Amino acid sequence: MGVNRAWEEEEDRLLYRRVYDSLRRRLESGEWSPHDKLPSVRQLAARFGVNRLTALRAYRMLAEENRVYAREKSGFYASPPVPLTGANASDSGMDEVEPSPSGPRPGNPMSEIQSLPVDYQLSQGIVDPGLLPNLFLSEYVKGVFDLYPKLMGTYSNPQGDEELRESVARYLTKDTRVPLAADDLVITTGGQQAIDLLTRLYVGRGDAMLVERPTYSSAIDIFRQQGARFLPVDITPAGYDLERVEALMKLHRPKAFYLNPTYHNPTGYTVPAGQRKRLVELAERYRCLLIEDDSFHEMYFGEPPPRPLFAYDTAGWVVHLRSFSKYVAPGLRVCAVAGRPGVIRSLVTAKSLADNGTPLVGQKLFLRYFESERFGRHLEKLRIAMRIRKETAEKELAGGGWTWDSPKGGLNLWVRLPDGLSSSELLEESLRQSVSFVPGLICDPLRETDTHLRISYSFVGEAVLKEGTRRLTELARRLAERNSLGSSLGRLMP
Amino acid sequence: MGVNRAWEEEEDRLLYRRVYDSLRRRLESGEWSPHDKLPSVRQLAARFGVNRLTALRAYRMLAEENRVYAREKSGFYASPPVPLTGANASDSGMDEVEPSPSGPRPGNPMSEIQSLPVDYQLSQGIVDPGLLPNLFLSEYVKGVFDLYPKLMGTYSNPQGDEELRESVARYLTKDTRVPLAADDLVITTGGQQAIDLLTRLYVGRGDAMLVERPTYSSAIDIFRQQGARFLPVDITPAGYDLERVEALMKLHRPKAFYLNPTYHNPTGYTVPAGQRKRLVELAERYRCLLIEDDSFHEMYFGEPPPRPLFAYDTAGWVVHLRSFSKYVAPGLRVCAVAGRPGVIRSLVTAKSLADNGTPLVGQKLFLRYFESERFGRHLEKLRIAMRIRKETAEKELAGGGWTWDSPKGGLNLWVRLPDGLSSSELLEESLRQSVSFVPGLICDPLRETDTHLRISYSFVGEAVLKEGTRRLTELARRLAERNSLGSSLGRLMP
Repeated sequence: MGVNRAWEEEEDRLLYRRVYDSLRRRLESGEWSPHDKLPSVRQLAARFGVNRLTALRAYRMLAEENRVYAREKSGFYASPPVPLTGANASDSGMDEVEPSPSGPRPGNPMSEIQSLPVDYQLSQGIVDPGLLPNLFLSEYVKGVFDLYPKLMGTYSNPQGDEELRESVARYLTKDTRVPLAADDLVITTGGQQAIDLLTRLYVGRGDAMLVERPTYSSAIDIFRQQGARFLPVDITPAGYDLERVEALMKLHRPKAFYLNPTYHNPTGYTVPAGQRKRLVELAERYRCLLIEDDSFHEMYFGEPPPRPLFAYDTAGWVVHLRSFSKYVAPGLRVCAVAGRPGVIRSLVTAKSLADNGTPLVGQKLFLRYFESERFGRHLEKLRIAMRIRKETAEKELAGGGWTWDSPKGGLNLWVRLPDGLSSSELLEESLRQSVSFVPGLICDPLRETDTHLRISYSFVGEAVLKEGTRRLTELARRLAERNSLGSSLGRLMP
Repeated sequence: MGVNRAWEEEEDRLLYRRVYDSLRRRLESGEWSPHDKLPSVRQLAARFGVNRLTALRAYRMLAEENRVYAREKSGFYASPPVPLTGANASDSGMDEVEPSPSGPRPGNPMSEIQSLPVDYQLSQGIVDPGLLPNLFLSEYVKGVFDLYPKLMGTYSNPQGDEELRESVARYLTKDTRVPLAADDLVITTGGQQAIDLLTRLYVGRGDAMLVERPTYSSAIDIFRQQGARFLPVDITPAGYDLERVEALMKLHRPKAFYLNPTYHNPTGYTVPAGQRKRLVELAERYRCLLIEDDSFHEMYFGEPPPRPLFAYDTAGWVVHLRSFSKYVAPGLRVCAVAGRPGVIRSLVTAKSLADNGTPLVGQKLFLRYFESERFGRHLEKLRIAMRIRKETAEKELAGGGWTWDSPKGGLNLWVRLPDGLSSSELLEESLRQSVSFVPGLICDPLRETDTHLRISYSFVGEAVLKEGTRRLTELARRLAERNSLGSSLGRLMP
């Protein structure tokens, strides 16, 4: 019981923080003028799918910080800014104010959800560490250090270890049929860093940017932090509406399009081969850099995927991100970025400023494994394991009123909830039962769609996966009943 | 001869690129209006300390890209911007244009100089890998993997490995006498990443920022990339002019002050204990975040250094960067950042967006070594080795007309050239003799002072260090002779 209690407190803390962070961000962005009336506690609770006490707690915290104030029986209002003029400001007892970020405080709700300790972890879109060849890896590590005795003492160069880049270039040349050399690649600390650096380089504050809807939640937060203006493009099992894409490009001249066309995160959809060439032509015509995140390329269940967009690029408007972290070695964090000389040159400089190069030790450890015969066998084994787990999750969800398109690869299911339920509401309940998943809301660049959720079948063992999805199905059933009971009561007692 | 030829070509390429990058940046920043006359080839050559052919080559490249145009017997002029309106732009044969960064293209001249392959590498401010306990490290690595058999398959959390943070917190508590817990720390990929993330958080485009003059060259490039407005503060063997610091804070309300008060890079100076408390008071009064880079703290030759600024902080206006990369394991890239909860919370989110956490493998490898008894002995040995190398370099420089203040710790000498010589000029010549160093110009946030250079005595063995500094002394002597001959001839033949 003690553990459950602590757990509930932790969870309450998280929920209240989400509300608090959102309000604080909006206050800081100047959305409200001083003394403007703010959303009611009731509205806020509904919006975030939390109970009213949680919403109230967020307001109380903001009131303590003099960011809002309450008027009795009326609600909460935006406070005027704290006076801060002249050198005497510090004499007025306000020394305790914290340093405050220059822009809106950045947020990353995905990372917060994933960091919650739960028994049924369905929010992590990475591979079960139990499926990785850990013992094999530990054994050969010593050999890597024998091979490079001064490895610990050597800086990587900012572009990444040359031997690793050569090796990945050979692999990608074979895979994409685009001839690539070591110089055409940059190694980054996971795909996330590549997205961040490319956004910093090519998307300025206020610049328009195409993003898929839904898309990778942390990518949304990166773009938001950079001040991008979103132009959402729906992704469906049939790909994009290319006429809409062209119209948006023509009208808004977006600087970039972040896309994940193969076993897309979170939906699992794959943009058909027929659209790929056309997308690259549009990008060239309207000078929009396509940032092609291809992190799930190797994770197919039947046929390999179509060739990447990068394979159709002739004029340099596609940059290709191939992360190996998720399904080879999350502890190493290795992503290769392929592009044309201009983009690569800028990216190397940005990388040299950001961290002066991904640590060399991890690159060399990865290289030896990547080149081993074992690597190919590992991928084959993994594809089978992932397919089985996907089928396990699908079996549990079947008949519960959920709908989804069964993906042909990747690590996630994108599931539409039974009618009338919201994923935020479900998350609040499911966390109490120690099940976590990614609510669709945070995958929507417009933060509107709350009808879907992402279930990652990749991270936990089969038994846990089965029980976790069973609990979700059961919960959704109960919530739907409660809601329909509530609305019946509502009709009876208006 | 073939090798020398290739080497000269490589070197020419670098020099021309520096000129090209600078001109392009200035053109893109809008410093010149279309059809403005640009600096003459002669001025440019003098400014960059390159020969005129090199300067001309930079202009030719810009002309090929339609950024400038030449008028015969007059010089080069800024081109008007390329017309790019309406959807037909792409039909005008300009499809081949490369994606271009949204802001000025970032630069990092320090990284470029360090990447040049030379025999006498005096530009790398890191420790000679030969002095690191490489064999010991390789031996115990296997044990680390036995201890954490699933290490390769595990993501780090964005804040950094908890066990490592606990260990570093204990170390820093003892060292700074500030009680610290794991939650007060964030692990970053080297100190550079910490500087970058903190700047992104706290310094917006156009915000004022205090920087030491001179300072760490790559930090200047990071601040520039972020669009900071520099307020330079001279650093001398006696510290800063605190009256000037206060006047600047009062007038400009800078968001942050990046400082490296202990065995400062590049000068080696240490800000006296007496100024430290006062600096923290000023920071609190004027709400200016002090970013204290303490990367050389452990590298003292006699007495340990004064307590860090962080030790005087009560209100949360100091954030403390303690990088261990440079003198423990550059291949691992581990830095700990200590600060108050508000700063740490924002930094964790920024880190989660930037790369989702430093790779776990390197953190665990570092942790085991950091906790070993061997670690303390390693530092002691290193201090002795560094002092000896410093003395070796000083001996070679003595009597050559150079002046410097002998540092009490750190990895670098900051040397004033014999009168009339510029460090850019010397670099051009010394690269031909396979000696590299960091020219003072790139350490100056105003990019004006060209009278000093930074010699790192830490990276190469003693014999190489001796020969490298000997070559520099000899070169400077010859250049001074040539210059004085040139001016004598000038007087004879006006």
